[in-house]
Amino acid sequence: MKTYIAVDVGGTQIRVAVFPEDSITPLKEKKIKTQGDGQTPVERLIGLLKEIWPTDSQVNSIAIAAPAYLDPQKGIVIFASNIPGWKDLHLSEILNKEFHVPIYLGNDANLAALGEWKFGAGQGHSNLLYLTISTGIGGGLIFENQLINGANGMAGEVGHVIAVPDGPMCNCGKRGHLEAVASGTGIARYVKEKLAAGVPSVFPADASPSAKEISDAAHKGDKLSIEAYESAGFYLGRTISDFLHILNPSILILGGGVSMSGDLLLKPMKASLEKHVISPEYISHLTITTAALGDDAGLLGALALSQSF
Amino acid sequence: MKTYIAVDVGGTQIRVAVFPEDSITPLKEKKIKTQGDGQTPVERLIGLLKEIWPTDSQVNSIAIAAPAYLDPQKGIVIFASNIPGWKDLHLSEILNKEFHVPIYLGNDANLAALGEWKFGAGQGHSNLLYLTISTGIGGGLIFENQLINGANGMAGEVGHVIAVPDGPMCNCGKRGHLEAVASGTGIARYVKEKLAAGVPSVFPADASPSAKEISDAAHKGDKLSIEAYESAGFYLGRTISDFLHILNPSILILGGGVSMSGDLLLKPMKASLEKHVISPEYISHLTITTAALGDDAGLLGALALSQSF
Repeated sequence: MKTYIAVDVGGTQIRVAVFPEDSITPLKEKKIKTQGDGQTPVERLIGLLKEIWPTDSQVNSIAIAAPAYLDPQKGIVIFASNIPGWKDLHLSEILNKEFHVPIYLGNDANLAALGEWKFGAGQGHSNLLYLTISTGIGGGLIFENQLINGANGMAGEVGHVIAVPDGPMCNCGKRGHLEAVASGTGIARYVKEKLAAGVPSVFPADASPSAKEISDAAHKGDKLSIEAYESAGFYLGRTISDFLHILNPSILILGGGVSMSGDLLLKPMKASLEKHVISPEYISHLTITTAALGDDAGLLGALALSQSF
Repeated sequence: MKTYIAVDVGGTQIRVAVFPEDSITPLKEKKIKTQGDGQTPVERLIGLLKEIWPTDSQVNSIAIAAPAYLDPQKGIVIFASNIPGWKDLHLSEILNKEFHVPIYLGNDANLAALGEWKFGAGQGHSNLLYLTISTGIGGGLIFENQLINGANGMAGEVGHVIAVPDGPMCNCGKRGHLEAVASGTGIARYVKEKLAAGVPSVFPADASPSAKEISDAAHKGDKLSIEAYESAGFYLGRTISDFLHILNPSILILGGGVSMSGDLLLKPMKASLEKHVISPEYISHLTITTAALGDDAGLLGALALSQSF
């Protein structure tokens, strides 16, 4: 029997799973915290891989999804802001020396797109745009049935396009990006600023509610909270119209916690999309849907990456 | 001997050329005006193809570059604003009935990108972004060595992304697009408006100079004309930084008359690009260059399309 090992490295935990060649149900799965026991995250990853290593099957490859800028061709993590020490890290080389199988790397959002295309909501589509909206905004592009990595593996940074020139500061240090106005962070900032300016709401004036708390308040009718999601939806729709003009996908898949808020976000987003497209052809055949793979997007994306070789 | 026929349909003229299988030097070439003699453009195209049809070789296919929204899979011209009657036109079917060879269609800017990738400035690059800047702004994307057509063949509309929200009216009827502020039309509008507002220049207050005249005046030191190109360059750079974050190309090719104005446009564009990228990795390995195929981009793009089947 032959198997694939898929790894999902996050800032909080590392998950690994062993998959058979013909199924997306793992034979084994384990997870540990990314940091602890005085070990580096790479040492912890190697230990976890040794623990789960199957003794009764041959491992074809190890594929890793990581929240990082990385060069998939060279197998190098350029920079991962949430993982200590992951900077110019030759991860493929390190793991290949240890385990003697091919090692494949991918950005977690890019691989989530690949997973949705192969196993999830995007099956059957040749031209797919995936956005994940949570604390930040990331994404991935599958066009002509190919994952678009770009020249250095840095494609798909759809949260870092300008939605509001000279607008609010983004997590990346530049201004006005989509992530700054339409992510969970952006929604929370919107409410916090309006509260401080005296706008009435169920939240006290000095509160800093989370995007989830704002979503709950909006569903109960809080006007300010509804407005915060309307604003995020407007900017999402306007910016996604640009993406449609550039890429013309047949499906738009929305993942991440913020996109789980339903019509609160999707309704203003769709209205804005309709308003801003240059031709109805861009949306008349466009499927808009939420992601299907949930928390398994990283693992199944890594599995899809393995199977593409 | 086997040959390819390539066609470049424009608003003014139709060009056709017969190419051998192994060269980009045509065996024969002809052109006529797109309109005239009481014929429709399709009748004129058919006549021209009959005229040039080689008697001593077998034609593999006919490939056509057209300034149109079109569905390459279905062989339908959805809409070409510059060619009378080209709306929902089943062009492939019409020509196939007449000539009994495979017919391939492509948007002219998309095919120019394909031509530059195969025969021009983009040779050897797997991830290429092409922009043509003239009266309008169009473009084409080659990623993972594939032309990105999108779901309905409507990808690559890089002129119709928002550069200035609620900014000047674009030729398409929407506001603030890159085309509205950085094309020849945008540059001319900038100068015309400033002249009308009393800004001093070599041009009289009621003048409407063309982008070429403004370029000439800028090269002679006219401050307003220099500013007009600086403004276009700033918006180009800022918007292209978004494209880099989404696509991460290894080469950016600029075609069209306006990009021939040299450092007048390119210097402010590059400064703006450097200012707006989220990581220097996006530009440290990026080649920025002008198109190599000039007026032959459409014909050679159509030839490249033929050869991709």
